[in-house]
Amino acid sequence: MPSVSSSLAAAMSDAAAAVAGALDHLLPKSDFPESKLFEAMRYGTLNGGKRLRPFLALSAARIFGVGDECALRTAAAIECVHCYSLIHDDLPAMDNSDLRRGNPTVHKKFDEATAILAGDALLTIAFEILADPRTHEDPQVRCRLVTALARASGAHGMVGGQMLDLIAETTKLDIGAITRLQRMKTGELIAVSTESGAILGKASTQHLNALRAYAHDLGLAFQIIDDLLDAEGTEEETGKSVGRDAQAGKATFVTILGPERARNQATLLSEQAIQHLGVFDGRAKHLEDVARFVVDRKN
Amino acid sequence: MPSVSSSLAAAMSDAAAAVAGALDHLLPKSDFPESKLFEAMRYGTLNGGKRLRPFLALSAARIFGVGDECALRTAAAIECVHCYSLIHDDLPAMDNSDLRRGNPTVHKKFDEATAILAGDALLTIAFEILADPRTHEDPQVRCRLVTALARASGAHGMVGGQMLDLIAETTKLDIGAITRLQRMKTGELIAVSTESGAILGKASTQHLNALRAYAHDLGLAFQIIDDLLDAEGTEEETGKSVGRDAQAGKATFVTILGPERARNQATLLSEQAIQHLGVFDGRAKHLEDVARFVVDRKN
Repeated sequence: MPSVSSSLAAAMSDAAAAVAGALDHLLPKSDFPESKLFEAMRYGTLNGGKRLRPFLALSAARIFGVGDECALRTAAAIECVHCYSLIHDDLPAMDNSDLRRGNPTVHKKFDEATAILAGDALLTIAFEILADPRTHEDPQVRCRLVTALARASGAHGMVGGQMLDLIAETTKLDIGAITRLQRMKTGELIAVSTESGAILGKASTQHLNALRAYAHDLGLAFQIIDDLLDAEGTEEETGKSVGRDAQAGKATFVTILGPERARNQATLLSEQAIQHLGVFDGRAKHLEDVARFVVDRKN
Repeated sequence: MPSVSSSLAAAMSDAAAAVAGALDHLLPKSDFPESKLFEAMRYGTLNGGKRLRPFLALSAARIFGVGDECALRTAAAIECVHCYSLIHDDLPAMDNSDLRRGNPTVHKKFDEATAILAGDALLTIAFEILADPRTHEDPQVRCRLVTALARASGAHGMVGGQMLDLIAETTKLDIGAITRLQRMKTGELIAVSTESGAILGKASTQHLNALRAYAHDLGLAFQIIDDLLDAEGTEEETGKSVGRDAQAGKATFVTILGPERARNQATLLSEQAIQHLGVFDGRAKHLEDVARFVVDRKN
């Protein structure tokens, strides 16, 4: 990972290990016959992901001096939602993907029914984790976390975005519609990851808005790079099936803007994201680094 | 509905109308391209169901003098979870049902991808509704509702039960395993429906436990009758595909106990459920009536 400052790489890998530990602790395990479900939940989450969303949550929480357990539980809950969405998106009826992070997708490793149920259970446990007093002593804070995550991931957020993405396979979308689609599909969950740190830390409105603006730009930059990787990357580099957008004849930032303008746009958004962090006087170093990392990443 | 006391029938139909109104108000609506998702969410919920779970929530809430809006929102949230589970259970990869309440199932009316997403969005909005201050002014109560619903419907509850149900198609289960399966698959959500009224009303532990015990017996009675209807009912009477358990060679209360003992067991459980309500000195009349209704129902 030569393009990432070594301190960010170390911090991200530390965070990824901590989040994997938290998920391992939080996800169910048993010898009961239904353990197949638990195995599928674990397989779909404990798979060495980058843990970008948890890292954002942890980094934002650190700005406000939030305790480690609170931050980690919140980060793990958000990752459960992210992983559930990948499991369902990969299903034959949706993107029909066989490969995810270099491994068979959950429905390939298990079966379709188990994949659907594992996704459902991961979505459910996310809210159980957030509502637990161990996530924050103040129930008002826990309710705010539940509300924020539900809004970001529901019909007006991630799920709505995925619906739009399916519609995009048969309908020509313009750049405005694609921006809205991507904001819903990936942007809102990225935004709530960052925002959750501020909610945990009972941050001021000024700080909350700064983090929201940051996350909005970051999310869009992230998605443009995702489209570029799908268009230009190899399955080996990215660890997932590539070229699917072109195959599906789907309009993306890359097909509309072309690769060069798309990359420039991502860089611009990344710089803009960093500017929003000015209010933190250098206390948001990790978030700044992430904004750079997101446009330099190769997978 | 001659076997139901007319006052219960009227109360249930009033409650069903109120819940349908609440769902209509709470579920998203728009002219955006993703409105197909919203339509599927609405189609899967606003379909004239019995609203048994909402009725239990509303009836339990009334014992403790809970305000109408709080009780209705909670009842609607639970119904969203129930309806999401039906949508996902009906999918081709699961029970592969074409018919639900006399109408095409969501994936038949729309398509599989939309059905998966509509289920996901309904599950998500349930928690959004519960965490909203309009559901209860005390955030501690809202967190308890979120926790209770997540536990009842997640990997150790409804979703785990559905996993067991799929396993039951290929594995021989004994009566103990089937009781556990049914308790998880349908019992926990029925229990949390009743319990939620007590949570909203900040009920004493004694009252909470009485309602739990009631709901446990009711849930089992409900399921035994469900199995009987599947074995003996017609598609016309029940409004859904019947004979599926036998077709799948699945062990149920009816295949193990035989129809007569199964019906006796359900009646016994119903009487036992009513006894648990003794602590309420006749203030739980609707819940008593429901316990009778559940064993007498024809669909």
